Amino acid sequence: MTQAASLEFWFEFGSNYSYLSLMRIEELTEAAGVPLLWRPFLLGPVFRELGWSTSPFVLQEAKGRHMWRDMERQAQKYGLEWRRPCVFPRAAVLPMRVAVLGAEETWMGEFCRRVMRRNWVEDREIDDAAAVRAALAGLVPDPDAVIAAALEPGNKLHLRANTEQASRRGVFGAPTFFVGDEMFWGNDRLEDAIACAAACRQARAI
Amino acid sequence: MTQAASLEFWFEFGSNYSYLSLMRIEELTEAAGVPLLWRPFLLGPVFRELGWSTSPFVLQEAKGRHMWRDMERQAQKYGLEWRRPCVFPRAAVLPMRVAVLGAEETWMGEFCRRVMRRNWVEDREIDDAAAVRAALAGLVPDPDAVIAAALEPGNKLHLRANTEQASRRGVFGAPTFFVGDEMFWGNDRLEDAIACAAACRQARAI
Repeated sequence: MTQAASLEFWFEFGSNYSYLSLMRIEELTEAAGVPLLWRPFLLGPVFRELGWSTSPFVLQEAKGRHMWRDMERQAQKYGLEWRRPCVFPRAAVLPMRVAVLGAEETWMGEFCRRVMRRNWVEDREIDDAAAVRAALAGLVPDPDAVIAAALEPGNKLHLRANTEQASRRGVFGAPTFFVGDEMFWGNDRLEDAIACAAACRQARAI
Repeated sequence: MTQAASLEFWFEFGSNYSYLSLMRIEELTEAAGVPLLWRPFLLGPVFRELGWSTSPFVLQEAKGRHMWRDMERQAQKYGLEWRRPCVFPRAAVLPMRVAVLGAEETWMGEFCRRVMRRNWVEDREIDDAAAVRAALAGLVPDPDAVIAAALEPGNKLHLRANTEQASRRGVFGAPTFFVGDEMFWGNDRLEDAIACAAACRQARAI
């Protein structure tokens, strides 16, 4: 009866502030006793629906300049390795499809952290089979079988449905967190969202 | 030699997140031993220079929707009274001009908090002589003399110069904090900016 509400984590591998949340979220939600629901979605279509051709950090030069410095400082504050990648935003469709498939699997967290590290620490491409295979290595018996399953039409549609749901619910950036209908935008709100989930009884939320 | 660097606080009375910082900043900087430099500027011309006709919270509906809920939650977190005003963003030219005049006066903090409370708690207009007179009452011997001084050409130019300096230094929203050339955007970075100023020796900053 006093069980915490779940926290929905809407994220994208190509999103820099998603990196700061993704590297910390499993540890923080576990410590708070809050169930974590992974919600991978594609930021590109959400941005296009809002009339933006790419990331606001690219479209708005001053905002982008501040963001790169902010990322350095924030990563340092959290004790996370970080390097500004030479490509931004990096395409991430294949690993996002695998994330949809893995959302309820035990390997999800580690897989996602490896993809994020590859983009934001190693500055390497993430949207190809070799990258995804490397991220799955040792976590699943047959990485190629997982990649094949991720490429099946039903799974592709699942990622598209997530993305459409994000737009419908008012998501305009990543990371975004939901506790029931309560929406929190940005890595700066991760702790608030977890506190909200911990304080809400399951019955109040979805 | 080990004196803390100063913190520049760039703000606007019409900016909602400036409210959250302004109500807290004197207490926080005093506790940290950080000299506070008030930097009033007009957000409207900065937005227009960036190609926006008004606040991004008005132009981007989803972002605006989230912001209003976020403000409720953040104000509650800080223990600040808050009400969503019926006009947003509220014009603030006259009180901003008075703020330019008062930036180095002992009444600055209390004057600014009163103007902010009027906009964000009482939901009343702030851009007229009656509002500014009320905010100055008891703080200066002759509020009308201060208003008259604020309306002098040199003081008007001072506010314009602040605004132009903001754009030139890469400010794209409010509040913004500077410690030397180090820029921090948003109320969420107030504590980081103060910590940075406290850690920096005066010599490193301006």
